[in-house]
Amino acid sequence: MSTAKRKRPGRPPGTSDTRDRILDNARELFARNGIGNTSIRSIATAAGVDSALVHHYFGTKEQLFAAAVHIPIDPMRVIGPMREIPVDQLGSALPLLLLPLWDSEMGPAFLATLRSMLAGEGVGLIRSFLQDVISVEIGTRVDEPPGSGRVRVQFVASQLVGIVMARYILELEPFASLPVEQIAETVAPNLQRYLTGELPGLG
Amino acid sequence: MSTAKRKRPGRPPGTSDTRDRILDNARELFARNGIGNTSIRSIATAAGVDSALVHHYFGTKEQLFAAAVHIPIDPMRVIGPMREIPVDQLGSALPLLLLPLWDSEMGPAFLATLRSMLAGEGVGLIRSFLQDVISVEIGTRVDEPPGSGRVRVQFVASQLVGIVMARYILELEPFASLPVEQIAETVAPNLQRYLTGELPGLG
Repeated sequence: MSTAKRKRPGRPPGTSDTRDRILDNARELFARNGIGNTSIRSIATAAGVDSALVHHYFGTKEQLFAAAVHIPIDPMRVIGPMREIPVDQLGSALPLLLLPLWDSEMGPAFLATLRSMLAGEGVGLIRSFLQDVISVEIGTRVDEPPGSGRVRVQFVASQLVGIVMARYILELEPFASLPVEQIAETVAPNLQRYLTGELPGLG
Repeated sequence: MSTAKRKRPGRPPGTSDTRDRILDNARELFARNGIGNTSIRSIATAAGVDSALVHHYFGTKEQLFAAAVHIPIDPMRVIGPMREIPVDQLGSALPLLLLPLWDSEMGPAFLATLRSMLAGEGVGLIRSFLQDVISVEIGTRVDEPPGSGRVRVQFVASQLVGIVMARYILELEPFASLPVEQIAETVAPNLQRYLTGELPGLG
């Protein structure tokens, strides 16, 4: 670049295209390798820029990760619709609402979060999302007998997390290639049982 | 140690107690932090020995991991009993056979394997265990309609893996503290449905 001399003062060099390219590559590498195994340098190389520029834009690797992962979704985009769904339809509605996110353009960010979680980082974040947000939103609606709602939701979470593991981490075939609607339809009665069925040891 | 001069030739220094102490600490650290985040040095420190001794006994970190993880179980200890169980009882028998292993003295080794898998190492090992061993052992017995057995087993695997995630990685409470028998009893009808029930899209 012949603009090197104009870099020093004022705005950082590069365009918003460059920022996006860095974020895209960061998401992809974090998802593939996890945070621990991804360096700023490898992201910079993949994006075709200098490491210093990545640091300049985003700070530390953790800050870059936050920037890359924060984006995907406003939790209310999921929680809002949930509130409208009758309790006896949650078993089929939940997987149809949640599983397609993993196949969407947000999938890599979710996968990155999951991998880093499994490496021991950020478990608290996921746990608090499940305990504080989902338990409050759904657990209170299936709290029959009283006190059982939290455990009911956790059984649902165990099945949904397991599907993600089998599809995106273990990549079991043909499971990983099944249409998400078939998965949702298959697990729906089981999730509904966890939410509103009679379960041993509750109540 | 005043025995330093006797170390050079002959048998490696230390007793089998030392080896066991290294393996115990290795298992604990691998389980807590995964392979990538655990150094030989940290294991040596935890075991109260020199890094060189760890290398001398076990070679590389990967070899140490193999030594620490290989031990836990002869797969036939699980597969043998499975063969005796009638198909219509597998839904309750499988979780009762598999989940208690995670609470046993072998739990840390399983957890270490899971963490490293999630970090991208060793997925092939687990996948091939699930596909080659479990699919053959159980999938062939629930292959109705023909060709469905493999997917049926993978739905079961998704639920069992999810339970492990919720209990040992996410540590959701009260889920993580429920008696393993209550978990097994709760998921049994759902697993049985995956194994022998009518599922959408199969056949």
